[in-house]
Amino acid sequence: MKAVIITIGNEILKGRTVNTNFSYIAKILTYSGYEVIKGIIIPDNLNEIAKAFKESFLEADLIVSSGGLGPTYDDMTLKGFSMAFGLKLEKNSDALNMVLNKVHDLTPEREKMAFIPENSTPIKNSAGVAPGIYTVISGKTFIILPGVPREVESVMEEIKERIKIKGFYYIDKSINLYNVKESLLAPLISKLMKEYGSMAYIKTHPKINEDGVPWVEVEVSASGNNKDDLEEYVSKILNTIEKEKNNYV
Amino acid sequence: MKAVIITIGNEILKGRTVNTNFSYIAKILTYSGYEVIKGIIIPDNLNEIAKAFKESFLEADLIVSSGGLGPTYDDMTLKGFSMAFGLKLEKNSDALNMVLNKVHDLTPEREKMAFIPENSTPIKNSAGVAPGIYTVISGKTFIILPGVPREVESVMEEIKERIKIKGFYYIDKSINLYNVKESLLAPLISKLMKEYGSMAYIKTHPKINEDGVPWVEVEVSASGNNKDDLEEYVSKILNTIEKEKNNYV
Repeated sequence: MKAVIITIGNEILKGRTVNTNFSYIAKILTYSGYEVIKGIIIPDNLNEIAKAFKESFLEADLIVSSGGLGPTYDDMTLKGFSMAFGLKLEKNSDALNMVLNKVHDLTPEREKMAFIPENSTPIKNSAGVAPGIYTVISGKTFIILPGVPREVESVMEEIKERIKIKGFYYIDKSINLYNVKESLLAPLISKLMKEYGSMAYIKTHPKINEDGVPWVEVEVSASGNNKDDLEEYVSKILNTIEKEKNNYV
Repeated sequence: MKAVIITIGNEILKGRTVNTNFSYIAKILTYSGYEVIKGIIIPDNLNEIAKAFKESFLEADLIVSSGGLGPTYDDMTLKGFSMAFGLKLEKNSDALNMVLNKVHDLTPEREKMAFIPENSTPIKNSAGVAPGIYTVISGKTFIILPGVPREVESVMEEIKERIKIKGFYYIDKSINLYNVKESLLAPLISKLMKEYGSMAYIKTHPKINEDGVPWVEVEVSASGNNKDDLEEYVSKILNTIEKEKNNYV
């Protein structure tokens, strides 16, 4: 199952805010059984939002967005989403109750957060006012999250069991190899990928210590339905690297 | 002038690594006079890399990528880039000297880092082995960076004066408003955007203190050629917000 993550917000595109929402969401989706095939970062712009949702709909089974659900003039994610699929924004009583649980007087800006796309479900946001949105269009699932990181986490916690692919496991283990250079280790990694690459993925992360001496973190990951097999497989590859690394220094 | 930033790497799409390269590059481009209109995050996959470069070429004046320049089997950015534009990868003597300045014996994996697209220029990488790449295709500028953050910074430092748009200024100032709620402040922001929105951009960032009390950071930014005018303009808006905020609590 493929997933695309859309990040909406000028503050990300200007480099003002680091996109921690992306890594948070991506990790949950990976461990839930999805292959995250793409990330798209777009501005607070109606046409760009609609375009990103439409394109992602064609490419993925699950689309998760963050940003643009708040009360201000530039929060327009639900409008863009609705535009993309020709949906109406409707006042939703569950969403309204969620908003009213958080605020006392209902100004127009606050009421706006209770207008959600037709046939969608609001998701509880314990850390903020605007609910998240869950909806399915032609078999593709959309999860629309707020932008503030603590709110993203709160809404994802509510919904993550619902999107988890049952019986799926993702295993990711690393070893640190000191006094090893990535470029010298490369032939070993290529050799192992030829041997094991159909079932596992090996990636090297070059590092440097305080004295400028390079070392390498080697990550091995695999995914599938049998957890024990995956564990065994990943460990076997890591053991081979550990054993053979001295031939590559 | 519009810019697109491409991030290449499975570790980002799996949520293993936070994409700090994106915010670092985005901030430099913003302050250099570019409007970053989009970010794309793609896996270490030849076709996806070629597709991302081709699409970005149609949308932007400057395209900056990070990731995939190293010595391992899954470092394939230059191959993907060359595929996108029908270019040959050629052994470049400047690039080779840069590599040889860093390593003593030239294995095939190390030599690979000196093969760069025809008609492109290597950029010095003080923090690593693989040079960055600078090239212009049909008036569009491409900067291709490594993926390790300290190497991204090193190469960007080398090249950033070259891409800076002369006489351009970007101003970004913030004030913190305590005991203010974003949803109540929203009408003031909308009013000010109607008045000043053609020349400045106002964005609210909702926050929460240790005791759970909400406060708001208001950011005002503007860009143009007259630095003094911009400073004055942004300050004027901030002063208005400061003065009128008490009507919105």
